[in-house]
Amino acid sequence: MLDLRHQPEFKNKIVNNSKRSKRPYLIRAMHEWMGDNSHTPHIVVDTSVDGVCVPLEHVKDGKIILNISESAAHNLKLTNDAVSFRARFSGVAFDVWVPMKSVLGIYARETGQGMIFSHDTETADQLSPATLPDEIEETRSRPHLTIVK
Amino acid sequence: MLDLRHQPEFKNKIVNNSKRSKRPYLIRAMHEWMGDNSHTPHIVVDTSVDGVCVPLEHVKDGKIILNISESAAHNLKLTNDAVSFRARFSGVAFDVWVPMKSVLGIYARETGQGMIFSHDTETADQLSPATLPDEIEETRSRPHLTIVK
Repeated sequence: MLDLRHQPEFKNKIVNNSKRSKRPYLIRAMHEWMGDNSHTPHIVVDTSVDGVCVPLEHVKDGKIILNISESAAHNLKLTNDAVSFRARFSGVAFDVWVPMKSVLGIYARETGQGMIFSHDTETADQLSPATLPDEIEETRSRPHLTIVK
Repeated sequence: MLDLRHQPEFKNKIVNNSKRSKRPYLIRAMHEWMGDNSHTPHIVVDTSVDGVCVPLEHVKDGKIILNISESAAHNLKLTNDAVSFRARFSGVAFDVWVPMKSVLGIYARETGQGMIFSHDTETADQLSPATLPDEIEETRSRPHLTIVK
């Protein structure tokens, strides 16, 4: 029987699949969990990542904190590629768009509970969340894990 | 202004809300992530937890591994309370029902990637995943985290 894993085309497909980041799935999960708890989800964004579109006057030390609760973030979209919504900053409406890989963490304002993402959660990027507060729950991934038999 | 946090009724509401487990949200997220990667999600279940309904002949060392891919698990439901589906075990159909707190972990058969849940992910229970393989990604939570300002 032909083992497709040795065919270059199939091998590339496996590699591409394994690169799909968990991050957007976890962000959607935490956003839903916080909403069901009547908590207010905030994300921490690394504004040095290409494509980040946020009001620059609210950036501090290369980071911005964004309230993505349903009441604050209008037309919120949490896709696999980006977080986007319209919100008011100091009374002025702004269309926010931040690529998923720029999102360093998500937490609930009321409790501080949430997740920060280590750089190996996102295989493709090299973000360093070292400057974030370490009180937030962290999720770690190991690229090569043993299959449970 | 009245601070509602000092009213017993409101305080109890906060306590109840904070007890809502992240686990079902994370399991749904990982199930979707694996499905989008064409991987096969499996869960590890502690069969000593009250209410677990699984074919006993497939239990080993108090645990059972269940394939919850869409092709294997029919009428799959991942609610906040339980995982339920119908599947065939050695050719015999069985209606599986396992409470959420009995789910110790979720991983992809092809890669071993996934999550195991430490006992403090679920505030209400005292599960010990110490007997599980430690190669699976672990998610930790700390009950009292500092709010990021």
